[in-house]
Amino acid sequence: MMPLAGFDVGLDRSLFLIAGPCVIESETLAQETAGALKEMTEALGIHFIYKSSFDKANRSSGASFRGPGLEEGLRILGSVRATIGVPVLTDVHEDTPLGEVADVVDVLQTPAFLCRQTNFIQSVASQGKPVNIKKGQFLAPWDMKHVVAKARATGNDRIMVCERGASFGYNNLVSDMRSLAVMRETGCPVVFDATHSVQLPGGQGTCSGGQREFVPVLARAAVAAGIAGLFMETHPDPDRALSDGPNAWPLDRMRDLLATLIEIDRVVKAAGFAEG
Amino acid sequence: MMPLAGFDVGLDRSLFLIAGPCVIESETLAQETAGALKEMTEALGIHFIYKSSFDKANRSSGASFRGPGLEEGLRILGSVRATIGVPVLTDVHEDTPLGEVADVVDVLQTPAFLCRQTNFIQSVASQGKPVNIKKGQFLAPWDMKHVVAKARATGNDRIMVCERGASFGYNNLVSDMRSLAVMRETGCPVVFDATHSVQLPGGQGTCSGGQREFVPVLARAAVAAGIAGLFMETHPDPDRALSDGPNAWPLDRMRDLLATLIEIDRVVKAAGFAEG
Amino acid sequence: MMPLAGFDVGLDRSLFLIAGPCVIESETLAQETAGALKEMTEALGIHFIYKSSFDKANRSSGASFRGPGLEEGLRILGSVRATIGVPVLTDVHEDTPLGEVADVVDVLQTPAFLCRQTNFIQSVASQGKPVNIKKGQFLAPWDMKHVVAKARATGNDRIMVCERGASFGYNNLVSDMRSLAVMRETGCPVVFDATHSVQLPGGQGTCSGGQREFVPVLARAAVAAGIAGLFMETHPDPDRALSDGPNAWPLDRMRDLLATLIEIDRVVKAAGFAEG
Amino acid sequence: MMPLAGFDVGLDRSLFLIAGPCVIESETLAQETAGALKEMTEALGIHFIYKSSFDKANRSSGASFRGPGLEEGLRILGSVRATIGVPVLTDVHEDTPLGEVADVVDVLQTPAFLCRQTNFIQSVASQGKPVNIKKGQFLAPWDMKHVVAKARATGNDRIMVCERGASFGYNNLVSDMRSLAVMRETGCPVVFDATHSVQLPGGQGTCSGGQREFVPVLARAAVAAGIAGLFMETHPDPDRALSDGPNAWPLDRMRDLLATLIEIDRVVKAAGFAEG
Repeated sequence: MMPLAGFDVGLDRSLFLIAGPCVIESETLAQETAGALKEMTEALGIHFIYKSSFDKANRSSGASFRGPGLEEGLRILGSVRATIGVPVLTDVHEDTPLGEVADVVDVLQTPAFLCRQTNFIQSVASQGKPVNIKKGQFLAPWDMKHVVAKARATGNDRIMVCERGASFGYNNLVSDMRSLAVMRETGCPVVFDATHSVQLPGGQGTCSGGQREFVPVLARAAVAAGIAGLFMETHPDPDRALSDGPNAWPLDRMRDLLATLIEIDRVVKAAGFAEG
Repeated sequence: MMPLAGFDVGLDRSLFLIAGPCVIESETLAQETAGALKEMTEALGIHFIYKSSFDKANRSSGASFRGPGLEEGLRILGSVRATIGVPVLTDVHEDTPLGEVADVVDVLQTPAFLCRQTNFIQSVASQGKPVNIKKGQFLAPWDMKHVVAKARATGNDRIMVCERGASFGYNNLVSDMRSLAVMRETGCPVVFDATHSVQLPGGQGTCSGGQREFVPVLARAAVAAGIAGLFMETHPDPDRALSDGPNAWPLDRMRDLLATLIEIDRVVKAAGFAEG
Repeated sequence: MMPLAGFDVGLDRSLFLIAGPCVIESETLAQETAGALKEMTEALGIHFIYKSSFDKANRSSGASFRGPGLEEGLRILGSVRATIGVPVLTDVHEDTPLGEVADVVDVLQTPAFLCRQTNFIQSVASQGKPVNIKKGQFLAPWDMKHVVAKARATGNDRIMVCERGASFGYNNLVSDMRSLAVMRETGCPVVFDATHSVQLPGGQGTCSGGQREFVPVLARAAVAAGIAGLFMETHPDPDRALSDGPNAWPLDRMRDLLATLIEIDRVVKAAGFAEG
Repeated sequence: MMPLAGFDVGLDRSLFLIAGPCVIESETLAQETAGALKEMTEALGIHFIYKSSFDKANRSSGASFRGPGLEEGLRILGSVRATIGVPVLTDVHEDTPLGEVADVVDVLQTPAFLCRQTNFIQSVASQGKPVNIKKGQFLAPWDMKHVVAKARATGNDRIMVCERGASFGYNNLVSDMRSLAVMRETGCPVVFDATHSVQLPGGQGTCSGGQREFVPVLARAAVAAGIAGLFMETHPDPDRALSDGPNAWPLDRMRDLLATLIEIDRVVKAAGFAEG
């Protein structure tokens, strides 16, 4: 059990959700998406954190849309937070002015590719905000304990670990459900990223492809495996999304999916985990 | 929806179970295990098929216990079938006299390593019994449609496909939950093998290791992903089992696990599958 | 050092070659290909064994060409052997009458998918002919020692082990050059199969694709890593080959490639192997 | 053909070597190692660049030795450069003051984990020095063309690409020799890193393990596949090295290995590459 952004998370608490469009496309889109997600999660009794990126620093191609940038991005996230009344999360990178971001958001997130950058992980953890650390596609789940130890060495004890797929041959990822159980041993709440896990990295030439149709399959599986929280990117019109559309789940199909997931979550958390 | 062994199976029917000790160790063990499983599955409303092997033809080492052999094995399976009143399944190999086996058992099963042996798959399918075809550790899930086409070309339309893990580096398997959705496209009921999926092939030198603690994790995940049936090896005393003990689930912990799984199954099948 | 088919093979002997069309298409093709290969290998000082299959038992699709069958296939192999004066190798399967084949050919070969079938491996080894055992795509190289132990338990001490790629995600194989060194520990001559290693299993729907352009890359790499023998499928017109054309190396480009390979082989075997 | 550090590199030039201890341990060690390497490479006719790191920013554990830091590290590299008379290379990270490093070294190198960080790659390339870009363990070789395009967009046309192994299950890497041919299509000289390729990432708990015995196997294979340059970490006493000792090649065994490699390089570059 760990206090997160106004609520507690863990295997003895009900599932929480981190969701939003991959990148901040406009203030209107951000407000509308956050509002719709807040409404449906409240109705379902799911704690919710809004997620969106101000800068996609690691796009496959240098020509891809990267976002509104730091200043405008933070302004929009702050406005969503104030107007809609939801906690917000964004991802930071090695050249991000971390203090500026930490002043605005409730939760910081670190990219999978950077999970082994010691200075970076410690700088982010030092901001004193909860941190969601994505596991690298190249990392065994039991090796996340070393990453967590680095983060905690800063004195921050609100660290989460997040599975987002492991390299499986070229241009493909596989979600190893065992890793969700393995990473519990870090003592951190475990989050499953159901949308990046269906990416086909680099699979479409200058951008990464994705298999949206597997988002609900993996989300159901991960919730049944047993997780503290679920991460999903969503968009009102994924085919026109400016980043990661191929793996985003349509906003108008979120409510039904979440309704199933929260039911599974209740079943497995009431029954307890036979493995542990 | 497909008629199997006195009941119908499919995504619009509740979960069925194939379970039993990996290999036939003795008539007493077979009777007791089958009896216990029958009792608990009846109480939970789960259709049940008893599984055990008469010969483990592909052990890592030539010195391992292989089973009682064909004649004695079939006698015991027949006795379990008659005495306990449950359908029985066993696995066959290239040198198995198929007709003799098909005369006794309700369902035939083919080993994963042999899924690409055309003559063998067709010989087994020709026996007219339902067949559970295990997907090779080396095969992409979408390539099972070719295997199924070979089997169906014999006129047998009671073919099931079974996921039991994909090669993931050396001495390890990963269960790709996407494959359970992909294999639905064969039109066959999809089965998940929750115990061989946690094998560490060859991982203990002369025998394969296993990670029993992940059986419930993967079983819950697969049932939530959406399957027709679940395959699990079980034993009253796994540490003394003569084959595959490291990945068998203890018989006295089956009831609790099954109770959770059937609840998950009800949730996901009632809600429908958002992916398709 | 092991006596093979009239010559000795091993890391202290020069490279030998197993080559020919994947499947026996016609007697004329067999004679012409064997003749051309014999001439070029004699000129280069490479010991040569002609390879062709009489039946492709594990094609992706049930509708693919499988070969002339046992009787006609053995007749053609025998005729190549007598007329051209080269030793011949063919692959056998679980339902092959092994004695009939062993009466005609000099070397037996077992398919990768079947490397864990204990009865089969021992039946083949029992024929008393040298055996080339292909390592399964699902097997770690250090686990081949168990396979070799089963084969040797029959009293046959002319066993070779062959790398032909390891599963790497879906529809792809990777050739781990470390495995060529690891498998030396079996005490058996190690062979590298340079053409099946570039297969894309199942990658073209109803048949396996291949990346012919990588054959010379992998062949050079394997010879430099240090092997006893090289296996390559070749065809005068690979685009019209009836099996495995996409990964066959064109016959008219064999001489140049072999000339480079034998030079590399001389360099590395003269220098010795720094690793061991 | 590309001008590098006083010499030209490419498939039509003889093999060049990047070598040195993983991390700068002391000025004495640096001087002695560089001197020994210079002497042996001159004798063999191999162009040589000295490599050592001033800070290991991505160690598995936060408690590992990281190096002397920027200032002292650059001083030592500058002293090696001046005293021994060899070009020097070091790796940079996201928080490195790039200008200071570029003022001292001849070649910059970027870590594999950071190959998708657009800003970082472009900042490094903007320094105007040749850059060796290591391919991520999670990246398909054909996707390096996007990384190269980002680097070249800065106007720098002296970019090299470097294979150092691909994720292969957990705690293991595999060196796909095909990738050396695939990456030629970037137009950049291709380098093979023979020592990091034998790492077992995270495989020893708090540090990465390594399989030193496979260094010569992979080095020979890669040179025979055809590369512009080879990267190898070496140490006079690898078992006492302060970083990456398990995969370093002993300094006193370098000369023999290099002698074999340069012979293989001559054979394959004289013969030409049958694949392209």
